[in-house]
Amino acid sequence: MKRNERVSMKHGAGGRAMRDLIERVFIAGAKAIPGVVGLAEMDDGAAIPMGDGFLVVTTDSHVVVPRFFPGGDIGRLAICGTVNDLAMMGATEPLALTCAAIIEEGFPFEELERIQRSMRQACDEAGCSVLTGDTKVMGKGEIDGVVLNTTGVAFTRTLVRDNGMKAGDRIIVTGPIADHGFAVLVARNDLKLEGDLRSDVAPLNELVRMILKRGGVTAMKDPTRGGVSSAIHEMASKSGVGVVLDEQAIPLRDEVRAAAEVLGIDPLHVANEGKALLGVRADAVDAVLDALRSHPLGREAAVIGTCTQSHPGRIRLHTGVGERLLAEPDGEPLPRIC
Amino acid sequence: MKRNERVSMKHGAGGRAMRDLIERVFIAGAKAIPGVVGLAEMDDGAAIPMGDGFLVVTTDSHVVVPRFFPGGDIGRLAICGTVNDLAMMGATEPLALTCAAIIEEGFPFEELERIQRSMRQACDEAGCSVLTGDTKVMGKGEIDGVVLNTTGVAFTRTLVRDNGMKAGDRIIVTGPIADHGFAVLVARNDLKLEGDLRSDVAPLNELVRMILKRGGVTAMKDPTRGGVSSAIHEMASKSGVGVVLDEQAIPLRDEVRAAAEVLGIDPLHVANEGKALLGVRADAVDAVLDALRSHPLGREAAVIGTCTQSHPGRIRLHTGVGERLLAEPDGEPLPRIC
Repeated sequence: MKRNERVSMKHGAGGRAMRDLIERVFIAGAKAIPGVVGLAEMDDGAAIPMGDGFLVVTTDSHVVVPRFFPGGDIGRLAICGTVNDLAMMGATEPLALTCAAIIEEGFPFEELERIQRSMRQACDEAGCSVLTGDTKVMGKGEIDGVVLNTTGVAFTRTLVRDNGMKAGDRIIVTGPIADHGFAVLVARNDLKLEGDLRSDVAPLNELVRMILKRGGVTAMKDPTRGGVSSAIHEMASKSGVGVVLDEQAIPLRDEVRAAAEVLGIDPLHVANEGKALLGVRADAVDAVLDALRSHPLGREAAVIGTCTQSHPGRIRLHTGVGERLLAEPDGEPLPRIC
Repeated sequence: MKRNERVSMKHGAGGRAMRDLIERVFIAGAKAIPGVVGLAEMDDGAAIPMGDGFLVVTTDSHVVVPRFFPGGDIGRLAICGTVNDLAMMGATEPLALTCAAIIEEGFPFEELERIQRSMRQACDEAGCSVLTGDTKVMGKGEIDGVVLNTTGVAFTRTLVRDNGMKAGDRIIVTGPIADHGFAVLVARNDLKLEGDLRSDVAPLNELVRMILKRGGVTAMKDPTRGGVSSAIHEMASKSGVGVVLDEQAIPLRDEVRAAAEVLGIDPLHVANEGKALLGVRADAVDAVLDALRSHPLGREAAVIGTCTQSHPGRIRLHTGVGERLLAEPDGEPLPRIC
């Protein structure tokens, strides 16, 4: 460690810098427990063998500003983020969620209640409940508004990891990318852009349940902070495969394309909150796409890439006019996006 | 709800005001699930029936300042707080802990690593591990230092609640009270007081395991924020019993007594982080005390009260020179104590 090194915004931005912090501070010296998916695996959560399956546990804090944005708010995000992390490990029926709120002195009750109603609505969509919580209050200027931590617990017989892709597998994204990050960025800066830019924040557990019934899914990850680029880099690196990505196949709404051009930010680096990336065996692609497209949240699913034996851990991006190596982002360029 | 009502420090201070906020915002409208101990029960955690027992889940955020204090630090507190909440429900063997860190930009890596080492030490004492986590960074002035959320999951065949006391039961405290709150308060204000005031922060799961083997425990709660007064008020009210408390029987270190007198704060309202309150059947008191005193963390355990049919939900305090009704604190008078 460099002397006097300090945490910077990029250490919380879902890219290489964050992974570096986690590895050096939180994982260093952690004991591995045989059979347990723990910290060192850096998957979407932990998995502990139990009976004929696994107990999956996942946690996330939510610090998004603004707290209300087109398509959602911090409450909906807190529920969906945790439901989706469980789902990414194959655990699609949450047993319990927790919600710990850290609130700034002077925060309006009315806004807390509004956030609470939104959490309950998202829970209803996902078929789960917040069963326990915690409340802390910090003084004015000690915390900005409200931070919500949600932890989720679920049991699954079939554990899905983010490291199971093999050469020849296809990569599917369940819908258009980067809606969430751009919607928050535009709302925060009160930018006037064409079209209706909305966050995609949604619970994916029902969709994932349908996909997993079809079989052939070798890896899953939700491209949140750091976006599709960071998530595929991680999946590829852990799986020991390379990836060829077809840029023109990646679904992108016109509004997002426009925002990306105006702001000069690559949508591949921007967070999603209602999308999943799937590694799928070539022979299962049609069945999985079929399942995806029968669900409102998967209607625009697309095959966007192929896993290769060559260039493990790296992504070659076919742009339509050529090919380049996709850089792994150091961190998403947008702070407090989730 | 009053219009324009706002959250104040007392809403996070573990007393009546916090309960009021939780009931009005977080519980209002929550659906009860048959057989599940959930939000509405406001116990130390949730319990979900599973196989021949219960899965217990509990969450806490830690915002203590200073982050390092005599006897502990925020890392040790984050582990022990969650281990103890699980233990208070009878779940003494944590399956998994999570740790979500929210860090201020500019925070030194070295301090994070020091906190991390302390968490690992506390985990070793409690026989558990942090298996998954989350890292968020907020800008300077958006959060003060670091906040740690820990969630714990454990399985137990024997669920212990905080509402099972019956008239005639005795109340036992496992050791001297109010050490944690006064140690933090003195450290924060750099007060010069006599003696060695240290936090009692410690994992109680091994101690609780020994006690539960003896049988006869009808309720448990750890007197954290709001102190012994708040915890016994809650246990009594939920159990539908009154309590007669013998002030002179409550173990209190000389240093704490001195600090309480200088500062004019009642130790009964001040947080503990390594103590439990037990409701115990009269015929089991000797066996439970025997088990407690055989363990370093229970050596100074004492019987401090008796449950009555009269004055349900209220505490009559025998002071030695008379008797008075103990007021339920609105909130602990000390902010950011845990």
